[in-house]
Amino acid sequence: MSPSSSGTGNTARVGVLGASGYTGGELLRLLAHHDGFSVGLLTAERRAGQSLGAVFPHLDGAGYPDLVKIEDAAWDALDAVFCCLPHGTTQEVIAALPEHLKVVDLSADFRLADPEVYAAWYGRAHGAVALQAEAVYGLTELAREEVRSARLVANPGCYPTSAQLPLAPLLEDGLIESDDIIIDAKSGVSGAGREAKQASLFAEVGEGVHAYGIAAHRHAPEIEQGLSAATGAPVRVNFTPHLMPMNRGILATIYVRSRAGADGLREALARRYADEPFVRVLPAGMAPATRHVRGSNHCLIGVFDDRIEGRAILISAIDNLVKGASGQAIQNMNLMHALPETTGLEQAPLFP
Amino acid sequence: MSPSSSGTGNTARVGVLGASGYTGGELLRLLAHHDGFSVGLLTAERRAGQSLGAVFPHLDGAGYPDLVKIEDAAWDALDAVFCCLPHGTTQEVIAALPEHLKVVDLSADFRLADPEVYAAWYGRAHGAVALQAEAVYGLTELAREEVRSARLVANPGCYPTSAQLPLAPLLEDGLIESDDIIIDAKSGVSGAGREAKQASLFAEVGEGVHAYGIAAHRHAPEIEQGLSAATGAPVRVNFTPHLMPMNRGILATIYVRSRAGADGLREALARRYADEPFVRVLPAGMAPATRHVRGSNHCLIGVFDDRIEGRAILISAIDNLVKGASGQAIQNMNLMHALPETTGLEQAPLFP
Amino acid sequence: MSPSSSGTGNTARVGVLGASGYTGGELLRLLAHHDGFSVGLLTAERRAGQSLGAVFPHLDGAGYPDLVKIEDAAWDALDAVFCCLPHGTTQEVIAALPEHLKVVDLSADFRLADPEVYAAWYGRAHGAVALQAEAVYGLTELAREEVRSARLVANPGCYPTSAQLPLAPLLEDGLIESDDIIIDAKSGVSGAGREAKQASLFAEVGEGVHAYGIAAHRHAPEIEQGLSAATGAPVRVNFTPHLMPMNRGILATIYVRSRAGADGLREALARRYADEPFVRVLPAGMAPATRHVRGSNHCLIGVFDDRIEGRAILISAIDNLVKGASGQAIQNMNLMHALPETTGLEQAPLFP
Amino acid sequence: MSPSSSGTGNTARVGVLGASGYTGGELLRLLAHHDGFSVGLLTAERRAGQSLGAVFPHLDGAGYPDLVKIEDAAWDALDAVFCCLPHGTTQEVIAALPEHLKVVDLSADFRLADPEVYAAWYGRAHGAVALQAEAVYGLTELAREEVRSARLVANPGCYPTSAQLPLAPLLEDGLIESDDIIIDAKSGVSGAGREAKQASLFAEVGEGVHAYGIAAHRHAPEIEQGLSAATGAPVRVNFTPHLMPMNRGILATIYVRSRAGADGLREALARRYADEPFVRVLPAGMAPATRHVRGSNHCLIGVFDDRIEGRAILISAIDNLVKGASGQAIQNMNLMHALPETTGLEQAPLFP
Repeated sequence: MSPSSSGTGNTARVGVLGASGYTGGELLRLLAHHDGFSVGLLTAERRAGQSLGAVFPHLDGAGYPDLVKIEDAAWDALDAVFCCLPHGTTQEVIAALPEHLKVVDLSADFRLADPEVYAAWYGRAHGAVALQAEAVYGLTELAREEVRSARLVANPGCYPTSAQLPLAPLLEDGLIESDDIIIDAKSGVSGAGREAKQASLFAEVGEGVHAYGIAAHRHAPEIEQGLSAATGAPVRVNFTPHLMPMNRGILATIYVRSRAGADGLREALARRYADEPFVRVLPAGMAPATRHVRGSNHCLIGVFDDRIEGRAILISAIDNLVKGASGQAIQNMNLMHALPETTGLEQAPLFP
Repeated sequence: MSPSSSGTGNTARVGVLGASGYTGGELLRLLAHHDGFSVGLLTAERRAGQSLGAVFPHLDGAGYPDLVKIEDAAWDALDAVFCCLPHGTTQEVIAALPEHLKVVDLSADFRLADPEVYAAWYGRAHGAVALQAEAVYGLTELAREEVRSARLVANPGCYPTSAQLPLAPLLEDGLIESDDIIIDAKSGVSGAGREAKQASLFAEVGEGVHAYGIAAHRHAPEIEQGLSAATGAPVRVNFTPHLMPMNRGILATIYVRSRAGADGLREALARRYADEPFVRVLPAGMAPATRHVRGSNHCLIGVFDDRIEGRAILISAIDNLVKGASGQAIQNMNLMHALPETTGLEQAPLFP
Repeated sequence: MSPSSSGTGNTARVGVLGASGYTGGELLRLLAHHDGFSVGLLTAERRAGQSLGAVFPHLDGAGYPDLVKIEDAAWDALDAVFCCLPHGTTQEVIAALPEHLKVVDLSADFRLADPEVYAAWYGRAHGAVALQAEAVYGLTELAREEVRSARLVANPGCYPTSAQLPLAPLLEDGLIESDDIIIDAKSGVSGAGREAKQASLFAEVGEGVHAYGIAAHRHAPEIEQGLSAATGAPVRVNFTPHLMPMNRGILATIYVRSRAGADGLREALARRYADEPFVRVLPAGMAPATRHVRGSNHCLIGVFDDRIEGRAILISAIDNLVKGASGQAIQNMNLMHALPETTGLEQAPLFP
Repeated sequence: MSPSSSGTGNTARVGVLGASGYTGGELLRLLAHHDGFSVGLLTAERRAGQSLGAVFPHLDGAGYPDLVKIEDAAWDALDAVFCCLPHGTTQEVIAALPEHLKVVDLSADFRLADPEVYAAWYGRAHGAVALQAEAVYGLTELAREEVRSARLVANPGCYPTSAQLPLAPLLEDGLIESDDIIIDAKSGVSGAGREAKQASLFAEVGEGVHAYGIAAHRHAPEIEQGLSAATGAPVRVNFTPHLMPMNRGILATIYVRSRAGADGLREALARRYADEPFVRVLPAGMAPATRHVRGSNHCLIGVFDDRIEGRAILISAIDNLVKGASGQAIQNMNLMHALPETTGLEQAPLFP
């Protein structure tokens, strides 16, 4: 119904590799009314030949091209690609792309800068080490300038985005201790992807909650990498994700040790994010809720005193598919094309 | 975070009366990036004096004015109002408004043209009969020209919108019989409003489904009024609403008698809605789902043959808060201000 | 925690074939405290060698045997089996069972008595036609005496149970017309089984509703078979299933033509089911809700006048996994062993 | 449908005060098949005169008496009462009861042994200090002998049950440090009660998660009281509850400091709860899920090593309405009547 912006002179032509999953679909929802990008390529290996409406009926009529195989892509007609392919296969696909293409990769393949850490957590050597070295880790608010000039951006994971936004500035400022950070995170099921898995079935997840990947989730080293950079020394964190009976959203409840008190921490964060369009530090007493960021690129942060002396609680809320994935990817791509950072991301959250 | 458009010379100044309920909040979500309207007034009797963010945290930072009482409104500074007040009290509020204000009323007060029908279903005489006679029933696709020149538009109910869009054209064309229309409708809980009621509690509604208001729902006469107009004679329908464990969305499964067959009905509807920006008739075999219209002003319609000879099935899906309420209200207000009808309503649906 | 009843002299030894799916798990929940049956065999081809707790943690500690392959079953130690295998493969498994075993089959393989109807809907000839002729269709309340003496019971489908319980007695009594029956059914997602399918993922189903299998669902001929038997002539019905964002429950809203009026229909049903332990006809004005039967073997039926003259509305609610599957299977198996019909099925519904 | 056990010679006659809320309804679900108790009184002030089925349709037909006002109760015909009245009003009601009645109180009124702590958290002096001194805090597994001989049992809160079961034994054994306990708890909405509150509406809670009562929830002092008793010195904990989009269940993820390692902690808990019928310590690697205890009186506990050296993670899951309220109340009342502790509580969990 709403034709996608056609590729006029001033817009960049972008492609989406792996367009049939949730992050692909979310990119296309947001790109449907993006003034700076027009979509010239959609790939999906198993659904090649089908219309986008066949895999995402909600986007039928948005004027997007049909799905093709990667091998049939006409790269010359593109300026940039969003890569939404599975972890592992991504690195060779990106390594084979023409060099004129800017890339935002939503997989985990280029997030870990240290090849040994990658190998330890993914059980195999990285297949594109040079690219890995070149990639910029694109947590936008924390790496804006590097992103501007990057050719390849590793888009952060959803959980790491929710954890680093509140934690990194406080570690940089030395306001919290780095050896006692506990991140209790709660995520909607779309974070598990669109692959058919028993564990993601409605009847397995509905009306219940459980922790998973306890002390073993691959987002832990990604969080630790970012926090180590912020503090200048190795950081090891507790990271305990939970699966929630909801489609979207991440709430990270973070327990830290600090002598600054909630007010001190809140002020530091408020100062740090004062001019950010997407991050908002809530006033004392207000707690973030995932439903207040749904569908938006917003991150809400609340800070509370703990009952235990010397402890504080940070709470952040994002939409895992937007600020935790496709929204941040567009935010980064905007910067890489010298567009206003908020282009295509202005929508208010959807509540209820 | 995203400042609402300020009232420059070319925008109309609008107010929202009753801004603290779900339809009020949804209007403000959609108006946050509307190019033609700026919001100059928000009222909420019990929450007067508070910021909008206090009642709708997801809209905090959108630059809206604080909530005031209706008695404190400065009407001269406004060009139009959306009225989201409870049924019954609405009519006297609107009757007291200055005449220069254009009004889209989202309550039921002006939907029933016949004062006797109103009295029969609402248990009291209508308090503003002259206004009731003046009001235009604003199912936009079916009354576009009347809406353009209206001063007071009665915005249709959510269920009636979902039922009339597929049914009215087919009745006009004489393609279905008018004495055997069965409307089995399924709605999300936001349709019950934001008032604290036991029946709307999460624990009363979650993990279950039930019918309510069987053969006695006030949307029945509204539907019948519209269908009677379409067919030129009194129509009486079955209308059976069901409450679903979801926030948003209406699916209406409508059972009709017809000799035209599904293909004939589908073609008639496709022809009727070919140029409509918000209504899409699905190809044979595709069934609408509420999740494919979530957050958008879209209406999807599918048509199927029944196993019973001479019967067919029409299915429509809308978001009850958008095309079923606030989205259609903006669509109407756009027309009343000679703006492009889709202004502020271009967002793609949110899935998942 | 709660040891399953051990096989003492007075209990029958039963097996569950295909114990790792939802109907298998539900059987074992209910059998955990059944006084007349002890469980001596659980099979699951892909999970053979594992404990039941590995596939159903909620049943860990209930004292059940480990899962084995069917080929490793010791049939001599058993008196009866519940068969929860997929449609199609079931018939050859049952055909190969020793004759001393009583069988309740929860698949669709033996539900359709006419081999041609089976072939038309399942796309292949039936592989055990003699057994098919022998099988008793076990809608308990309508076939109690045949079930008592049966060796093989075809346990009804979930939707057909919800539809036939209100409809069959009224057709038998000639109180409703048989050529105008519209069954709008709403089901929880567990009805789709535990197989990993994209369409059953939480993020595909959550926060939405849609119709599926419109005029083409395999439960339609099953319903028609039962209603044809009740009326003595071929019946063709509308049957339109909808998928709901909930784990359990079926609500069937059934639109019928009748001159008896709601009161007449209600009285007939109340009379018919007066002594039934699991079927309850609600008083005038009360509507069934799936949450009021959750986890129980109950069926609630409500009857309402329609706004259309000469029409009425029947509404039934069951738990699709209990009265719609495993509960009714136990009810039948109780009868086949001359046990009180309610043995193991006395639990009150779980609300909220 | 399933008649409640009538009051024969060997059963005790019990009443339920405040029978129209969720804990009242849950008591009656469980008591419907309790061999040792028959129900002789149900009170509900605002619903007095109505049948139980009018407030809980799922219990209609269970043979319970109609609701009456407390002032109309015939206390002589009873042996014991469950008290499900609101906090605050409970203490005067219980103080006025005849002394021959045994009482299990599900409110918070008698949970805090120290009147000053009560006053500090509830904003008023306690109105029945002598009774408060007499009351036994009935976390059954930790106070079994005191409960046996108690006349008044203060039934623990839902969160405190989920927190103390894993923590108390470890503190008693000195295996974890008492000054660094962080309890991140997630609860279903039924924990908020059946009162009509905007914050508990489906559309406010669905599809989202948020923390509430941060560092200020009244269950914090209750937890601290229990842990202080276990450790012999004042304990102060972090307790951060979260509201989940589900009806039932509490998952408590508890972060502790310990040199014992997960294996050491798990073994200590397994030893402590080896003979308990309702508490199960999971083997290494298995994480509790609320859906695996739904509808049952079970508590599952899992123990995991943390990534941070010297830290461990305890996770417990209960059904907030059963082990967290009505189930534990019956467990206590069983003990008070020298009945087997599991009477009426044998049901297996309901999954999915």
